[in-house]
Amino acid sequence: MAEVSIQRETGQAFMPKFDANGLLSAVVVNVATREILMVAFMDEEAIAATQSTGLAHFHSRSRGKLWQKGESSGNVLKVREILVDCDQDALILVCEPAGPTCHTGATSCFYRRLEDGVLQPVKT
Amino acid sequence: MAEVSIQRETGQAFMPKFDANGLLSAVVVNVATREILMVAFMDEEAIAATQSTGLAHFHSRSRGKLWQKGESSGNVLKVREILVDCDQDALILVCEPAGPTCHTGATSCFYRRLEDGVLQPVKT
Repeated sequence: MAEVSIQRETGQAFMPKFDANGLLSAVVVNVATREILMVAFMDEEAIAATQSTGLAHFHSRSRGKLWQKGESSGNVLKVREILVDCDQDALILVCEPAGPTCHTGATSCFYRRLEDGVLQPVKT
Repeated sequence: MAEVSIQRETGQAFMPKFDANGLLSAVVVNVATREILMVAFMDEEAIAATQSTGLAHFHSRSRGKLWQKGESSGNVLKVREILVDCDQDALILVCEPAGPTCHTGATSCFYRRLEDGVLQPVKT
């Protein structure tokens, strides 16, 4: 395994591994309930903005720019903890949400379950 | 909002939304503990293989091919439930793991926390 891969897996240095588009995956979890609220992407700018403000920022692939979750709705996500995976290409943001996370008004974006090929609502 | 977007958010049809590379995000959660075990990507082939076998399959971006989690280690993930997000570009696979999920031997790939810019081990 390449030296840099070993450092990423075993070292103490935060060395986020971005893909060809400069992105990595971010999963938001509710600090109180541990429910997964949303999944998005972060680039270097979004990580820096999240660290400096304590509020979750992402990179919008559709708009091609930095996006603070809740910037228009007010439903910000206060970041309490950041977990990093083995190869440092995914983060978990453990957050305190100020309101519903999904733009539909649902607590979580994952408000449906796939059952026999059809989507059924789940309580979130 | 485009008609197809409305269908994706409110309809019962499973219409996975793949990115330019034909991928969507997949988060694996332990059905018993609700711990997040790993984050990966799925393409149409990986979703079909997961649905037909009941075992989690992903698309390896580095190897450019279908990958059954645990195909070499035996630490497969039995899929108990699939949750779908609002715009159908992310899935949660609620799984029963046959063993440690991370290739490092850790229960979860998220075995470190970012603290003051440095990675510290967490119990998983």
